[in-house]
Amino acid sequence: MTTPLRLGVAGLGTVGMGVVSIVRRQAALLAARTGRDITITAVSARDAGKDRGLDLSAYAWESDPVALAQRDDVDVFVELMGGEDGPAKDATEAALAAGKDVVTANKAMLAIHGQSLAEMAEAAGRVIRFEAAVAGGIPVIKTLTEGLAGNEITRVMGVMNGTCNYILTRMENAGLPYETVFKEADDLGYLEADPTLDVGGIDAGHKLALLSSIAFGTVPDFDGIEIEGIQRIAIEDIRQAADMGYRIKLLGVAQRTGRGLEQRMQPCLVPASSPLGQLEGGTNMVVIEGDAVEQIVLRGPGAGQGPTASAVMGDVCDLARGFRMATFGQPATTLQSAPSTRAALPAPYYLRLALLDKPGALAKIAAILGNSGVSIDRMRQYAHSETAAPVLIVTHKTTRTALDEALAAIEKTDVVVAPPVALRIESV
Amino acid sequence: MTTPLRLGVAGLGTVGMGVVSIVRRQAALLAARTGRDITITAVSARDAGKDRGLDLSAYAWESDPVALAQRDDVDVFVELMGGEDGPAKDATEAALAAGKDVVTANKAMLAIHGQSLAEMAEAAGRVIRFEAAVAGGIPVIKTLTEGLAGNEITRVMGVMNGTCNYILTRMENAGLPYETVFKEADDLGYLEADPTLDVGGIDAGHKLALLSSIAFGTVPDFDGIEIEGIQRIAIEDIRQAADMGYRIKLLGVAQRTGRGLEQRMQPCLVPASSPLGQLEGGTNMVVIEGDAVEQIVLRGPGAGQGPTASAVMGDVCDLARGFRMATFGQPATTLQSAPSTRAALPAPYYLRLALLDKPGALAKIAAILGNSGVSIDRMRQYAHSETAAPVLIVTHKTTRTALDEALAAIEKTDVVVAPPVALRIESV
Repeated sequence: MTTPLRLGVAGLGTVGMGVVSIVRRQAALLAARTGRDITITAVSARDAGKDRGLDLSAYAWESDPVALAQRDDVDVFVELMGGEDGPAKDATEAALAAGKDVVTANKAMLAIHGQSLAEMAEAAGRVIRFEAAVAGGIPVIKTLTEGLAGNEITRVMGVMNGTCNYILTRMENAGLPYETVFKEADDLGYLEADPTLDVGGIDAGHKLALLSSIAFGTVPDFDGIEIEGIQRIAIEDIRQAADMGYRIKLLGVAQRTGRGLEQRMQPCLVPASSPLGQLEGGTNMVVIEGDAVEQIVLRGPGAGQGPTASAVMGDVCDLARGFRMATFGQPATTLQSAPSTRAALPAPYYLRLALLDKPGALAKIAAILGNSGVSIDRMRQYAHSETAAPVLIVTHKTTRTALDEALAAIEKTDVVVAPPVALRIESV
Repeated sequence: MTTPLRLGVAGLGTVGMGVVSIVRRQAALLAARTGRDITITAVSARDAGKDRGLDLSAYAWESDPVALAQRDDVDVFVELMGGEDGPAKDATEAALAAGKDVVTANKAMLAIHGQSLAEMAEAAGRVIRFEAAVAGGIPVIKTLTEGLAGNEITRVMGVMNGTCNYILTRMENAGLPYETVFKEADDLGYLEADPTLDVGGIDAGHKLALLSSIAFGTVPDFDGIEIEGIQRIAIEDIRQAADMGYRIKLLGVAQRTGRGLEQRMQPCLVPASSPLGQLEGGTNMVVIEGDAVEQIVLRGPGAGQGPTASAVMGDVCDLARGFRMATFGQPATTLQSAPSTRAALPAPYYLRLALLDKPGALAKIAAILGNSGVSIDRMRQYAHSETAAPVLIVTHKTTRTALDEALAAIEKTDVVVAPPVALRIESV
């Protein structure tokens, strides 16, 4: 048995206390598995006086996370504060500069500053691990960088925001409108302080940026992601999708195309019978496709104390075992800057239009779609009591460019009362 | 870039040629990810003259795998011959003795001789990796030993024989009897030369023994597994299960109980709406439950050239990166010899009896069950034209001991014409 691996834990919220709990509860197991004792020497959080349910008096307390990161008795700085800038980034940089390895759950920081932090880590001969930043307890980073290292990855997809999936499945199961379920989720404490991070697809977008980077060997490019939230999904979209054998999911998709790297985080229709379609509630799922392995599906809790702490401890155990790897799976200086491209590959789309009840209205829409080269597979117009009738269209495969041209032209007509809703039908 | 990692590949069947193909096709990618060139220096197979579709003339040829394992220009011995004893074991031992690391897909060899091989490897300072031995392309060994290293594992379950799952789902979807589908699977080349390895649950049992060992830190104990094949599953069992909202799967389950380690590989009923219940065809699935992570589900191809070679290459890349770990996740000498126990935890069971059409027959069965303390949840007797009527019973939770007592007593009566079929209903 060599010297212990000493952790400094910054951030003692749900996840931080989960890590403290595992380190204490499973000390013998961790030592048996890694060949080293894993200990916590110091901690840091905003409020030193708060009762967190466990006695923390055995650990040195640092009110400043930067000071924690620089302590001589800390080998690994465990960053669980969150926030893309500010104390989390300052302390991470301080830890690397002081020669510490870093384990973090901070998706925003890495999605935005991942490249510069990775370069800094590699220059210092240190590593940054972030299994807990993507898909909670699911070891997806490890699966991509290590388990599937022999594969050229062709596509990565995932439902990675449990709150959005909860809202969408609850709308379907209870037949409730978005606004009602959003309010429910807020009351249950499921939403971030800024709910746009969840329902706007930003949190999931951060995760997709990290997955893309390790899957394709590219510089993390959050700005290159086409992001669309779930706010405009109506209960009738969900019902119509179900009628046609689909479910609507906030789905992240990253794939390499001839024109560059395509990254999308947007509501999509997926077959109801597929693993993604069957995913209920707050559970996450990541689908990885590679040239050799074909398709691997990983499913598990995307958040919560135990699962997220499990992911953090997986990283810590790797470090205790001496497993060291470049942050994004290969040296940061070798990551490519791939041009980003928008939905280069054609796909079928689902459209919902609010059409005025005027003679020739439908003909006008059909003509516009035809002029843009968008061909109609199925169309339904519904009986209605109001002035605007819902019209649902499923197109044949079309490019997003052609579709956008048609949608812009439709919006300019005098026969629709609201911007059309357009959802991609993803083949999974 | 350090020196190349040099592989010697023994066995050039489907998987072996898949490995050769990846090493050649993805040379640049592998080097970028691991920081080392990965090369093949020598190969071995029974028939040197056979056309395998790729030019192998650049590699030294050894007709004897032991000689291959001992070559000075081989760092990693890749054993893809199969067979629990014989050349595979001889060459693996020779490789370890000669100071080589070993990567193998050989579940039978490790399930039977894993402990002694692991001890030999550790004494020699070498490692044995076997991701490809369990669940094909799914990185389940890595997930258990590394990703979930912070967890006390509470249960591992899996559908790990694609042929059995193909047979069971094909029976259900096509409404065909076991014998017909077995013949189909044989004609399609899905079955091992000795089909009992597949349909008798032995192949899947080998995999379960390996999963149990790494999940629970125990000596691999294939003999401790309660194994039952799918040969007695009738189409009516599948139909009845479906009627009640279940599917029948050949399911491996390992869990620690107060009385010891329980390992079962047997047909079970699982909820049709669960990920296990929804698994179709030859796909594999492993469900891992831990005290922190709750539940992780992994799904992917359980066999085939690309997926299995992908798993082999994941192990090879780990070795190239310098990741070295004890064979079963912790030193072999620290693995416990847990007593094996048979279905210690109570569960509900599905029973099918072929009951003679005699007055009082059903009463006799009900009385026997009651006397053994097995209480009936649901019972159905079917209309029939023959002398024996199918009777289906779902019990409340009962111990296997009580159930076995009742089944033995039922067999001794004069009212059944065949041994009862009893399938556990697993909560997943």
